[in-house]
Amino acid sequence: MPQNRIGERTILFPHAPGILAAAAVVGPKEGKGPFGQAFDLVIDDPMYGQESYEQAEHAIYREACQRCCQKAGIETRDVQALLGGDLLNQIMAASLAARELEVPFLGLYGACSTMSESLILGAILTDGGYASPVICAAGSHFCTAERQYRFPLEYGGQRSLAAQWTVTGTGACLLSGEAETAMAHITGATIGQVVDMGINDASNMGAAMAPAAANTLLRHFQDTGRTPEDYDKIITGDLGQVGSDLLRELLKESGITLTKEKHLDCGLEIFDPKDDIHAGGSGCGCSASVLASHLLPRIHKGEWQRILFMATGALLSPTTSQQGETIPGVAHAVVIEGGK
Amino acid sequence: MPQNRIGERTILFPHAPGILAAAAVVGPKEGKGPFGQAFDLVIDDPMYGQESYEQAEHAIYREACQRCCQKAGIETRDVQALLGGDLLNQIMAASLAARELEVPFLGLYGACSTMSESLILGAILTDGGYASPVICAAGSHFCTAERQYRFPLEYGGQRSLAAQWTVTGTGACLLSGEAETAMAHITGATIGQVVDMGINDASNMGAAMAPAAANTLLRHFQDTGRTPEDYDKIITGDLGQVGSDLLRELLKESGITLTKEKHLDCGLEIFDPKDDIHAGGSGCGCSASVLASHLLPRIHKGEWQRILFMATGALLSPTTSQQGETIPGVAHAVVIEGGK
Repeated sequence: MPQNRIGERTILFPHAPGILAAAAVVGPKEGKGPFGQAFDLVIDDPMYGQESYEQAEHAIYREACQRCCQKAGIETRDVQALLGGDLLNQIMAASLAARELEVPFLGLYGACSTMSESLILGAILTDGGYASPVICAAGSHFCTAERQYRFPLEYGGQRSLAAQWTVTGTGACLLSGEAETAMAHITGATIGQVVDMGINDASNMGAAMAPAAANTLLRHFQDTGRTPEDYDKIITGDLGQVGSDLLRELLKESGITLTKEKHLDCGLEIFDPKDDIHAGGSGCGCSASVLASHLLPRIHKGEWQRILFMATGALLSPTTSQQGETIPGVAHAVVIEGGK
Repeated sequence: MPQNRIGERTILFPHAPGILAAAAVVGPKEGKGPFGQAFDLVIDDPMYGQESYEQAEHAIYREACQRCCQKAGIETRDVQALLGGDLLNQIMAASLAARELEVPFLGLYGACSTMSESLILGAILTDGGYASPVICAAGSHFCTAERQYRFPLEYGGQRSLAAQWTVTGTGACLLSGEAETAMAHITGATIGQVVDMGINDASNMGAAMAPAAANTLLRHFQDTGRTPEDYDKIITGDLGQVGSDLLRELLKESGITLTKEKHLDCGLEIFDPKDDIHAGGSGCGCSASVLASHLLPRIHKGEWQRILFMATGALLSPTTSQQGETIPGVAHAVVIEGGK
């Protein structure tokens, strides 16, 4: 039996599967943010020509997957698996996109940690020779998330300062075991456990996710013997301002210094700070679209050699919130490196 | 690079990871069915001492995972991943169980196909040496599913004759790369694609799932060169009466004869036929608990040498049903064999 592990929770990928291409399709508000020019497509209208926001979310999802294949020069029908999910009940955006893509489909749900989860499972499939190429994707939509988790869009409720703004967009990566022309390579991963410190404010998901992010990071450093200095950037998904501050504080208590310069939170970067988004962006399309449009190209250009990409998820549902349940968090870390 | 594949869509597991133990915890109605004595625990009360049916669902889920580890003589803390899901929005039963089990968690959603999906990913993780042992689990609860997908329990609506009864229960398997003492081994799998033939009756999920089941079966036979004769049983998840008849008809059109003797549908077997369950059982706990309590023990005893276990899922949500969307289906096939 092979033993592709180090420490208690960390996986190694001896063949370092490659990310052949990545694509992001986002909404108009995201298009006005600092990565506006880097996205593959910025749609004008959150309905994207569909009859409902949910249908728009699935069409954006499909479009990102198709563009990703096109950029890699791969026919969609040659994809051996789509691994992905979204935030809708029963991950309907990914499921409906998979119906139209007609490729084998493995549905995932990790809330906003879904992009990391899909990269880990995609890397395992391609590294082990079980399937290649595979699409890893995650998406969200402000209008569907808002009305599903919070209030009707027309209600216009006051938003708390700790609240985050769900990203409208999907990011997709094409992973392959044959990785000679890859933009970047996946060399390791730490699967996170569910951590719950008792936060029950559904408007403060940064606080709910930060302890899980700290847990996964600490275990990753323990397992690998690495420190933040071994990475050009430690990237979190969508902790936002509240969660990012908490993460650095929790790490400090455990003797790890994560400077603001070393840390990049996708939720803090995706929107124009002048926009009224409060604590930052969120949604599993947030880290997925920043990965595709900003992080991977910087590795590809050689500006960064090695990053730790850790999308973070708050595992709540409207039902559990209404029943007074607290909000567990989860975070998975993926080591992404430049040319082998 | 290894190439652990055969044909277009089928994966091979060269190390044949083992199922060390399996456990099922189910509700009282399931306990009165033909497998009543075979389940590890039959609870008396669908609330299972909790304050809501959703909380009960997560407690049943956790209990099944813990009993599975106990039967294998493995401490829960030594489990390297829990791969699983359920039918609740945002798979909250699995997520809350994972919080209490404190093991690395990869959340899956494949509707009632979740048990097959988790076995495939679990087999990949253990076969490739990326994680071992891992728990693969899927669960559902009649009372939470009914009020989420259909009507309040108190409403007492008339059920269509094509309707199925969601199983209250969770089935869990412990997979390991070190498989010398295993009950059974996983040797191959075919990942299914999403298939939608335009069914939009949410009370007839058998019809929605049958085309996906036929698609996956045909591809499995094409890829492997096998026929139904190469299996002691071809097992489907919860097609029920309507879906089972349709599956055999669809296969016949493609020149494959699947006899009633060769075919076993978990949904048709789990309840006492005298109970008023109409077209059969359903829910992702259906095939998972039948696998753990009835199918795997028969392989372990040597009564069967090789089965094809194919859980089937109907990918619908209350929102998509209300918006007039049709119901896509998906099915994943797993080859399970006796002693190596």
